[in-house]
Amino acid sequence: MVTGPPRADLPLVDKLAGYGVATVHEALGRTGYLGPGIRPIYPGTRISGTAVTVVCWPGDNLMIHAAVEQCQPGDILVVTTTSPSSDGAFGELLATSLQHRGVRGLVTTGGVRDTAELKAMNFPAFAGYVSAQGTVKATAGAVNVPVAIAGQRIRAGDAILADDDGVLTVPREQVGQALAGAGARTDREAAARAAFQAGELGLDRYGLRSTLSELNVEYLSYERYADGDDRA
Amino acid sequence: MVTGPPRADLPLVDKLAGYGVATVHEALGRTGYLGPGIRPIYPGTRISGTAVTVVCWPGDNLMIHAAVEQCQPGDILVVTTTSPSSDGAFGELLATSLQHRGVRGLVTTGGVRDTAELKAMNFPAFAGYVSAQGTVKATAGAVNVPVAIAGQRIRAGDAILADDDGVLTVPREQVGQALAGAGARTDREAAARAAFQAGELGLDRYGLRSTLSELNVEYLSYERYADGDDRA
Amino acid sequence: MVTGPPRADLPLVDKLAGYGVATVHEALGRTGYLGPGIRPIYPGTRISGTAVTVVCWPGDNLMIHAAVEQCQPGDILVVTTTSPSSDGAFGELLATSLQHRGVRGLVTTGGVRDTAELKAMNFPAFAGYVSAQGTVKATAGAVNVPVAIAGQRIRAGDAILADDDGVLTVPREQVGQALAGAGARTDREAAARAAFQAGELGLDRYGLRSTLSELNVEYLSYERYADGDDRA
Amino acid sequence: MVTGPPRADLPLVDKLAGYGVATVHEALGRTGYLGPGIRPIYPGTRISGTAVTVVCWPGDNLMIHAAVEQCQPGDILVVTTTSPSSDGAFGELLATSLQHRGVRGLVTTGGVRDTAELKAMNFPAFAGYVSAQGTVKATAGAVNVPVAIAGQRIRAGDAILADDDGVLTVPREQVGQALAGAGARTDREAAARAAFQAGELGLDRYGLRSTLSELNVEYLSYERYADGDDRA
Amino acid sequence: MVTGPPRADLPLVDKLAGYGVATVHEALGRTGYLGPGIRPIYPGTRISGTAVTVVCWPGDNLMIHAAVEQCQPGDILVVTTTSPSSDGAFGELLATSLQHRGVRGLVTTGGVRDTAELKAMNFPAFAGYVSAQGTVKATAGAVNVPVAIAGQRIRAGDAILADDDGVLTVPREQVGQALAGAGARTDREAAARAAFQAGELGLDRYGLRSTLSELNVEYLSYERYADGDDRA
Amino acid sequence: MVTGPPRADLPLVDKLAGYGVATVHEALGRTGYLGPGIRPIYPGTRISGTAVTVVCWPGDNLMIHAAVEQCQPGDILVVTTTSPSSDGAFGELLATSLQHRGVRGLVTTGGVRDTAELKAMNFPAFAGYVSAQGTVKATAGAVNVPVAIAGQRIRAGDAILADDDGVLTVPREQVGQALAGAGARTDREAAARAAFQAGELGLDRYGLRSTLSELNVEYLSYERYADGDDRA
Repeated sequence: MVTGPPRADLPLVDKLAGYGVATVHEALGRTGYLGPGIRPIYPGTRISGTAVTVVCWPGDNLMIHAAVEQCQPGDILVVTTTSPSSDGAFGELLATSLQHRGVRGLVTTGGVRDTAELKAMNFPAFAGYVSAQGTVKATAGAVNVPVAIAGQRIRAGDAILADDDGVLTVPREQVGQALAGAGARTDREAAARAAFQAGELGLDRYGLRSTLSELNVEYLSYERYADGDDRA
Repeated sequence: MVTGPPRADLPLVDKLAGYGVATVHEALGRTGYLGPGIRPIYPGTRISGTAVTVVCWPGDNLMIHAAVEQCQPGDILVVTTTSPSSDGAFGELLATSLQHRGVRGLVTTGGVRDTAELKAMNFPAFAGYVSAQGTVKATAGAVNVPVAIAGQRIRAGDAILADDDGVLTVPREQVGQALAGAGARTDREAAARAAFQAGELGLDRYGLRSTLSELNVEYLSYERYADGDDRA
Repeated sequence: MVTGPPRADLPLVDKLAGYGVATVHEALGRTGYLGPGIRPIYPGTRISGTAVTVVCWPGDNLMIHAAVEQCQPGDILVVTTTSPSSDGAFGELLATSLQHRGVRGLVTTGGVRDTAELKAMNFPAFAGYVSAQGTVKATAGAVNVPVAIAGQRIRAGDAILADDDGVLTVPREQVGQALAGAGARTDREAAARAAFQAGELGLDRYGLRSTLSELNVEYLSYERYADGDDRA
Repeated sequence: MVTGPPRADLPLVDKLAGYGVATVHEALGRTGYLGPGIRPIYPGTRISGTAVTVVCWPGDNLMIHAAVEQCQPGDILVVTTTSPSSDGAFGELLATSLQHRGVRGLVTTGGVRDTAELKAMNFPAFAGYVSAQGTVKATAGAVNVPVAIAGQRIRAGDAILADDDGVLTVPREQVGQALAGAGARTDREAAARAAFQAGELGLDRYGLRSTLSELNVEYLSYERYADGDDRA
Repeated sequence: MVTGPPRADLPLVDKLAGYGVATVHEALGRTGYLGPGIRPIYPGTRISGTAVTVVCWPGDNLMIHAAVEQCQPGDILVVTTTSPSSDGAFGELLATSLQHRGVRGLVTTGGVRDTAELKAMNFPAFAGYVSAQGTVKATAGAVNVPVAIAGQRIRAGDAILADDDGVLTVPREQVGQALAGAGARTDREAAARAAFQAGELGLDRYGLRSTLSELNVEYLSYERYADGDDRA
Repeated sequence: MVTGPPRADLPLVDKLAGYGVATVHEALGRTGYLGPGIRPIYPGTRISGTAVTVVCWPGDNLMIHAAVEQCQPGDILVVTTTSPSSDGAFGELLATSLQHRGVRGLVTTGGVRDTAELKAMNFPAFAGYVSAQGTVKATAGAVNVPVAIAGQRIRAGDAILADDDGVLTVPREQVGQALAGAGARTDREAAARAAFQAGELGLDRYGLRSTLSELNVEYLSYERYADGDDRA
């Protein structure tokens, strides 16, 4: 149990939610994405916050209960297990406690239950599984130590951004840089969007015709292709 | 083909739908859950009923057709295959037949198709897969014999409860006990919810501080943690 | 890069969208279904169109950019990778380009990102994964060569039909036949639906009682079954 | 903890090992197979015995320790978990205890470790996973209650047969019948083998030409096939 | 059922077995590999031959029996199913028939059983699964039509090469070219092997230092890296 | 590219190979195991060494080539990808280079090819996949930065231990402690083994009877169990 970790600057973290996960992921040089295996339990939400990390034993949610006390407004609970587990270690009562403390949502590699209730109380959860299977409270784990999900390291206090595209972690020292990058990227994307709506091609806008040419990609009419290859 | 199995008492089974799958699962000592692999094809439904069980050959839905005749109002069709199969063995026409007979929904380890139509006709289905792949009607199986899904045994006539958290089976002799347990649990949860909304912690409410202490879980400030471990 | 492939007749392809994937799959003798692994990123859409096929290197979307130029109104982009990949090779900017060109949607074995934006702009996508993980533009692939997904071959210009049940490919020469078959099947299904609503059983309508009998399926009352088998 | 379950007759169970898993599976009407997910940790073994069943909590092997005491010569330990778990709940020390008591091997849906040592001590294990991940001894489960693996029910005392093709359970009342069926099948297979070595075809031996004909399977020369279908 | 497909030239096909799957895969421009999901049931074999293709219904091996008659010396049976299936549709008796006809082995996306017997009779099999689960002979399929596995198309008569690295298909028209490419590649590999044994680096041999430089890959001493990044 | 990371003390690392992965995993408080997904490509090896870490783009092995130059005797190459990839990014030629530099083996979350050759040259590899699918050399990654596999962090220079049970990472500062713990554990295991061979039960040796009692685990004869529960 580690208490009082340094947290990313919350006003900056709040601004992260102005950008999508995919955009900030790009702004960070394509790092920090927790993979396609963690999905929102209901669509249409976007949250940002600071991580309180939890490592549980499979089938055991004791450390989630212990972690609640470490949470403060603006936090997002990030839960993983020592080995893969789909059990529903988190449900509506824990969410009630967290919501009372100003926690903005849950991210877990494991399972969530009471999903209809969580949606009704507007508590976003991003999970590996939905499972009604309950857990015990018998085995020790850790709170606020660094964890790794999908090869990405998350320390207590790092920023978390989550939306329909999944979950992203931003090192607490890099939130400002992420915001700057996301803003610049958003501007570039707006320009690109306008260009594409006007009919410009990515091939031209990104200079990809020369790439194709260097890679010896040939253009062949269907007729010539079909002639040369009886497999068409 | 087994005909006329004893069914759980329907008025009691009806009351089951007043509780969620996660709650009744707890009330049964955490047994009967059919696992995170079976999901609703559309969210927001909850059904309870009595099981008519079907074992099909993969890629073959002959026995589902045979099972329709065995169904009566209040039933839920529970389908599994002799080896894993994702094929869409069930669709809108079978649902039409079942709805005519008062059947409340479908649970299957396999696949379902015509999902938009099933939603439009308000026929809940909980399935392992959505698949348009059709099936033949060529190989024998069984109806109303005990089946096992995710390690849980389901006999014909056992109660089924299904909602957004998944599917639960309740032995037909234990429905009354399940209701009593679920009611008691719901009361306890209401009290806990109120307490958590008032700021009490699960650590205190469930007496977990002593558990943590017995497990030698230490509290360490981030500063001391970071000092002692250069991996922070 | 193959240019100008023959395309299925668009007015016929348009009519395909009057039928569901499951129905046309049946009309084609149960061929052409791209499997339960490709799902809509949001429910409630149905599209038909002509395929522009793309083969990408994993983690690389160069060839998608190259393919945009080959697209014309009525097309659907069909993307696969040389080895399995979940990366988000497709997002809102590419969709903007495609929508400008009259493309009706995306089918991919890989990943899609910007899913909230795609839904907002009403661009249907059917994908193996949702992933924010970005891609590079560094490696060659192919456009408009035949590809195979879930064992089904798709040539450039073949028809594609996609809805909540998944994705179907129809060889460009067989669209008329598919329509005829789907129409006939829809008529048969309407008759069957009416019959089932009136209480007729599939056992009788499809002549399955004799099949059961030939397969030596016996009917046994629960009492006799329980007597003869202590495992009931 | 259930003690003293009736066991299948051991001399009969011993004879089971004279037949392969695939053969006895056929003799039982294709029931009892525990699926392709459970594999031998080293090839080339075949064991038969009577089941002592264990249900563990994921990440916890307390009940395996409790089960050892219930084992007697001729038994095979059959372990499953309340939800999926890959942890290495079983290793060389438990095998030493079991071997001392005359136990013939292990079957588990979970994980095994110390695999090199298990091979060296000639203790066959059939497992879902090899994993070095250790477990705790903190949570209750059950011993000698019926379990279900891959949809097949196994009661304490039922017969188990395991070889390179996987694991089969035979209800304790049906071992004699399984032996008789396996013997008859082995004789038929010997005759078929001799016939096939002499060039007879299964098409003829099993009367399948008429089946093909009834299913309207047509024979077409490659030339005619290629003519009629430009996809050849 | 298509009879008498053109087969790749057998003497050339025989020579393919002089090269490994990985080498010929490279020689073909990295096409034709059937993916990591198909593995040898026992290690240490390499076979080449001409494909007889079979499409089965899941849980049904009728068409394998029908295909035996179409096999001739030098063939390899290539089996797939209309939807995913792990069932053991192939075993020792079918292998006996095939061996009698000079067939060199089996490739299947599905399951194989009698694996110990297949190894004892020296009949190589490359399969998606080992499973004792038996099949019926009730549903039609196809023989010698093109099939697609892992996105690769295989026509009857195409060449197959299989070893411990998996399975490769070579279009029947390209066997000569594959051999030439594999031979040239083998020579280049021998030279590279000698150079690497002498200490040359791939970085230099393949001119990759300039690639790294163009990609702006920087070299940084650990000290400077650790200074600049507290995450080291 | 990070050069010259501090490495764990090699003589100590060498001693690690005197213990199995499962034993050292326990000695480290059950941390560091890279999970059941990484398996030896051939059984019967055990290696220890110091990690050179590599992050590759999927389908691209450029950074493995770059990493070779950073390797020195006693190292083990540890490869992962930015998103999941099964491609055969490593084969016999790279192994030749590494063996020349005194590298002891490979650990990868991705794929390996030329497996027969690797076995013949006695180069141990522990991999997520065997795949003949080749890769390009086009995209940047990183060498000797920390990576995370299965939630475990591995820094350049950390110790690696791998055998038939999988792969373990030991932080470079904890090798001495791991050795001490493993030695102590080995002594305890030897004593336990002797006791178990003499018939002592784990129930008694580990004091688990009181645990069972505290958990309210009841012992029930089969007769009483069967009486009270008609599901026996």
